[in-house]
Amino acid sequence: MASASASTPSFDRFKPAARVAGQKQDVWTIVNEAATASPVQPIVNMGQGFFGYNPPKYVTDAAKAALDRVDCNQYSPTRGRPRLKKAIADAYSPFFGKTLNPETEVTITTGANEGMLSAFMGFLEQDDEVILFEPFFDQYISNIQMAGATIRYAPLQPPDHGSIRTSSAADWTIDMAALEKLINPRTKMIVLNTPHNPVGKVFSKSELQAIGDLCVKHGIIILSDEVYDRLYYVPFTRIATISPQIAAQTLTVGSAGKNFYATGWRVGWLIGPENLIKYVAAAHTRICFSSVSPLQEAAAVGFEKADEEGFWEQSKNEMQGKMKRFCEVFDELGLPYSDPEGGYFVLANLSKVNLPEDYDFPPHVAERPRDFKLSWFLIMELGVAAIPPTEFYTEENMHLAENYLRFAVCKEDDVLEKAKERLRGLRKFM
Amino acid sequence: MASASASTPSFDRFKPAARVAGQKQDVWTIVNEAATASPVQPIVNMGQGFFGYNPPKYVTDAAKAALDRVDCNQYSPTRGRPRLKKAIADAYSPFFGKTLNPETEVTITTGANEGMLSAFMGFLEQDDEVILFEPFFDQYISNIQMAGATIRYAPLQPPDHGSIRTSSAADWTIDMAALEKLINPRTKMIVLNTPHNPVGKVFSKSELQAIGDLCVKHGIIILSDEVYDRLYYVPFTRIATISPQIAAQTLTVGSAGKNFYATGWRVGWLIGPENLIKYVAAAHTRICFSSVSPLQEAAAVGFEKADEEGFWEQSKNEMQGKMKRFCEVFDELGLPYSDPEGGYFVLANLSKVNLPEDYDFPPHVAERPRDFKLSWFLIMELGVAAIPPTEFYTEENMHLAENYLRFAVCKEDDVLEKAKERLRGLRKFM
Ligand SMILES: Cc1ncc(COP(=O)(O)O)c(C=O)c1O
Ligand SMILES: Cc1ncc(COP(=O)(O)O)c(C=O)c1O
Repeated sequence: MASASASTPSFDRFKPAARVAGQKQDVWTIVNEAATASPVQPIVNMGQGFFGYNPPKYVTDAAKAALDRVDCNQYSPTRGRPRLKKAIADAYSPFFGKTLNPETEVTITTGANEGMLSAFMGFLEQDDEVILFEPFFDQYISNIQMAGATIRYAPLQPPDHGSIRTSSAADWTIDMAALEKLINPRTKMIVLNTPHNPVGKVFSKSELQAIGDLCVKHGIIILSDEVYDRLYYVPFTRIATISPQIAAQTLTVGSAGKNFYATGWRVGWLIGPENLIKYVAAAHTRICFSSVSPLQEAAAVGFEKADEEGFWEQSKNEMQGKMKRFCEVFDELGLPYSDPEGGYFVLANLSKVNLPEDYDFPPHVAERPRDFKLSWFLIMELGVAAIPPTEFYTEENMHLAENYLRFAVCKEDDVLEKAKERLRGLRKFM
Repeated sequence: MASASASTPSFDRFKPAARVAGQKQDVWTIVNEAATASPVQPIVNMGQGFFGYNPPKYVTDAAKAALDRVDCNQYSPTRGRPRLKKAIADAYSPFFGKTLNPETEVTITTGANEGMLSAFMGFLEQDDEVILFEPFFDQYISNIQMAGATIRYAPLQPPDHGSIRTSSAADWTIDMAALEKLINPRTKMIVLNTPHNPVGKVFSKSELQAIGDLCVKHGIIILSDEVYDRLYYVPFTRIATISPQIAAQTLTVGSAGKNFYATGWRVGWLIGPENLIKYVAAAHTRICFSSVSPLQEAAAVGFEKADEEGFWEQSKNEMQGKMKRFCEVFDELGLPYSDPEGGYFVLANLSKVNLPEDYDFPPHVAERPRDFKLSWFLIMELGVAAIPPTEFYTEENMHLAENYLRFAVCKEDDVLEKAKERLRGLRKFM
């Protein structure tokens, strides 16, 4: 052994980069492990936000047709297939109140996720700062950190009576004064998410106006994550449409996965002014080179046909129906929730649920806030999986969400009914 | 105007990050622009390495079948669909001479490109160093820089008589002494590429043994880019198979796009020891979350059926046939080339071609080395697109490749014949 020491590699050399090392177990792993270990099988999974049904047939048919075409199976242009860029420009121009140029104002990415990473990589450097609202979509954090920037957090203020009565998701409010205090000369970007995951809030026009004005005043890029843009149950405003000044510094993010019930397709896009889009595209080219070609073609057909098929209306009505259907169980149980204004997530408040004092939580759950225990308990005792939202908070603000659980209702109606049936079992613990 | 100054955003705020700013025009843009501007239309495009034909029918059929399955349209597990991980473990275990564990030793990525970025992001930090051979695959550079690391270059030595006579791509050799001189305590990783793009070299077992020994001695992670692993015309060795010591520090990269003629599908993978793979997977989760689901399923079927279909043999024989067919024109013309040992690229040496003294190259081509002028000239005068390989070099070593052009032969035979016919027009300039 000793003689080998000169040529023994220092073990250090194989150590991971800080950006991936030593993270605590993520919520998806914990929930999936619990789901596998639960005595109640199969679990009703209302955790992750994937759809329990297929995209519309004309969209999957378009994907199948694309698979027969040589050009659709080979590298797409790095900024996306021309047909999809055009379909998106055509679909969004009416919303934006101007004719979007598909060649310069739209760029295709590998899902919204890699699209946002591309925006961060395109603009952020060491010492730059980004403002996020809490709760946040978890991928934002690692993506911003990968670009070397620092995050400042602005918690949404939950409704005062959230543990007592149901109220609109609109009652999660922004403290504008606190938000403005976070801004300093290093602030380069703010990330919005509307309709919001997990809160279900649709930011009002006046909220967006106030945020937009701040960003114009301080020269801050707005990255508006609007992946749930077709699912709103109150009037929906896109911040880029409020004024030309705001539009000039806004990147809007979309997702074919969310729009067409195909989260596994990994097709997303950013829309914005040419001088911003070109650097998003440059970063995307370096990260993924190009995005999946045949499914871009299918997404293009989806946009081309959605209006004539009445798809957007139907999609919205259907999801709102699912939301209503599911939330009935909380009304029955007298459990308050944040009634969503958009999206397919609902935050239910389970402060009225009494976890048995001597319940045996595994250490990695016991050390987390109460929502992790609630999640574990529901999986083990009732066979229903939901997500603990403190995962989407910094330590400091976790207390704001420790009585909530997030349920995804983008599932078949019989799954929703099954979940309701099981959740009625909560009565025993109230 | 003056009164607005207080609230005018500093224009600086919208400036791009250094990692995407101010790059010179890339070769793909230059070649595509030239192709559009050429008087000879349509261009015969032997530039980019996409296939001119479709994947095997049983693979596209599997993709179509997957599009009918809900789970195949939704988020795949972040490390990949179990069926694909198993199919890859099964397919590669015989090569690796051990049973690969699909759960711990394989991870799926969004093409080889994002797979390599994930490896860089998983292990490299500021001040780490990576060794690359020149010429390199261009994406390596930005991907390593994105992780903050520094690159050291080891040029392959071109054959002495490369401008006079055809010789094997094996004659591009490694200066082992020079390579060892690049190693220092900061050296964390070396990137290999075999079969090599653009040289067509298949690294010999003894070369790999020497590199592997160096890496074991100095504790350097080996990232072996083997995307052309099914296309070799001489014996092919995988560095991970040389010894358990080398295997313990090697990550091997593969690509379904290259294997199954579907570069637009964006499915790749890394194979390696658990303690390395897990950080690649962690980085991939942060970058893309998960990879395209239905096409992972199709790639799994591809691996399951390829042997019984005799696909790998056929694929190799077919490509070797295309290579022979195409290179005839260089033999006819008396233009030397590096006879490829693998892959689908061939480097032809055009030092015998006389570019007209007064030829009017646009400034962005005129300022580049001679191969850019050759490329431009061939597109404009003959209607054949090929890639100037100095794009894949640092300034310092560009001179090694300035008389070469890279042709991709993964095209239909009639396209190859058309290209040959046009290239015969070079006679006038010799
Ligand atoms: C708010 C938000 N942004 C972005 C994404 C990622 O979307 P995609 O699947 O298109 O990458 C999600 C997915 O859950 C999300 O909830
Ligand atoms: C050497 C090499 N590595 C990696 C890649 C990228 O492969 P993929 O398309 O799977 O991302 C290529 C593509 O040309 C290549 O030539």
